[in-house]
Amino acid sequence: MKFRRSERLIDMTNYLLEHPRQLVPLTFFAKRYGSAKSSISEDLAIIKETFEHRGIGALQTVPGAAGGVKYYVKVKNEEAEPFIEKLCNLIADPERLLPGGYLFMTDIIGNPSIVNKVGRLFASAYCDTKIDVVMTIATKGIPIAYAVASLLNVPVVIVRGDNKVTEGSTVSINYVSGSTKRIQTMVLSKRSLAEGSNVLIVDDFMKAGGTVNGMISMLYEFKANLAGIAVLVESENIEERLVDEYLSLVKLSDVDVRAKKINVNKGNYFVKNKGDKR
Amino acid sequence: MKFRRSERLIDMTNYLLEHPRQLVPLTFFAKRYGSAKSSISEDLAIIKETFEHRGIGALQTVPGAAGGVKYYVKVKNEEAEPFIEKLCNLIADPERLLPGGYLFMTDIIGNPSIVNKVGRLFASAYCDTKIDVVMTIATKGIPIAYAVASLLNVPVVIVRGDNKVTEGSTVSINYVSGSTKRIQTMVLSKRSLAEGSNVLIVDDFMKAGGTVNGMISMLYEFKANLAGIAVLVESENIEERLVDEYLSLVKLSDVDVRAKKINVNKGNYFVKNKGDKR
Repeated sequence: MKFRRSERLIDMTNYLLEHPRQLVPLTFFAKRYGSAKSSISEDLAIIKETFEHRGIGALQTVPGAAGGVKYYVKVKNEEAEPFIEKLCNLIADPERLLPGGYLFMTDIIGNPSIVNKVGRLFASAYCDTKIDVVMTIATKGIPIAYAVASLLNVPVVIVRGDNKVTEGSTVSINYVSGSTKRIQTMVLSKRSLAEGSNVLIVDDFMKAGGTVNGMISMLYEFKANLAGIAVLVESENIEERLVDEYLSLVKLSDVDVRAKKINVNKGNYFVKNKGDKR
Repeated sequence: MKFRRSERLIDMTNYLLEHPRQLVPLTFFAKRYGSAKSSISEDLAIIKETFEHRGIGALQTVPGAAGGVKYYVKVKNEEAEPFIEKLCNLIADPERLLPGGYLFMTDIIGNPSIVNKVGRLFASAYCDTKIDVVMTIATKGIPIAYAVASLLNVPVVIVRGDNKVTEGSTVSINYVSGSTKRIQTMVLSKRSLAEGSNVLIVDDFMKAGGTVNGMISMLYEFKANLAGIAVLVESENIEERLVDEYLSLVKLSDVDVRAKKINVNKGNYFVKNKGDKR
């Protein structure tokens, strides 16, 4: 066939994109295409260069008999920055203001292409971190959690505010909502989280951090470890933040219901991703 | 650069996969790579052939000045069949049995690679249908709904069982749960669904169809149209099915709690996808 290499490049690109953070042995590709391992190596060199050049992601080559190639998401600042700016503008729209100073965000969370991009940014930020599970709380955090988890190649566990028969035995904890100071309950199915798991907590919105803090307490109940916290929007001007270390894309400062003004800035994504991680 | 075409093929593959059901003008690619439109056409012919040959999807070329190329998901039966069989085996595990004959499915729904594959199958089945929105009900249907919606390039709207301040004004309806015959309420944010939208309803589980039927009533409230219904698992042996036309991947027949036996078969996916759609 005349475009043997072309076909391999297209199929390998698709395969790698569909299997992030998975070590694929060179022999797998060699067998798949009936090609020599040397040809596969050349193909991968081309894909690696293009992925990096075009900001698609990074390919890591592991040498040796048990080696292979691993694709992971790595977002360039040129991609992240305009996206976060666009998000800020979207969120600053005064039409979003709801009674009580709440913000309507359902349309943003309902847009898979935005959600997938948010997932890309978070997956990129945590690409070097050991993560076994992404945890979120129903309902609005779920889409973002899946977008991240898909790219990190790990399962999602969903904490709920109520008990369902379909969850089997559950662990239930009480927590104090940071902003309203009300005592609330969250439950997690006993079967869903293994001891010692490294957990990335993901949510759509964080005010004082009471809900996130509740999820951290849940981790203790399951003897699991906190690997990171990532939120789409954080709210500034909080007297007492209950959570220290987290990543945010957007920071909400002043919400003035009377003047119909929402003050939005970039979150700490770039600050966090500058020094320690890359 | 020596692998000009190679780079284009890799980047175009990634771009098309990230933009399903979107018409991309040839001039867009020509400009992106500084190439002649004739070279882009040749590239696309190679990608089209590989996508079809490898079962990645289909490329549709629209000729003319306003033309371009459109990628959409098209799953081959060779891919769908073993996957659905694997799903059946997974679900038939007697460890899933919960008190009351319910099934624990949280681990299946929590696995993004399974969920994404379910999304691929549904997106493929509805690739020729006009769909503007995917609708689901919180909580378990949400991951599947996003997986489908991503590939159909449409937003998701989430019906809820309770009212939240962050939803703004809502429309609330009562519906009768088909199996328990209890009256329940579901709400949908007024802003989230436009009049005349063509809606694909997606859920994880359907017994008699009361919940799906509730969502259909919700569509009437919003003057929206039903474009299709897709469920991961349907339950057989239902005296009175409230919904006629739907797609299912897995069919649950007998759940015998005492004998710890779950009888699972393939759903109607292949039946539905044989005659009318391809």
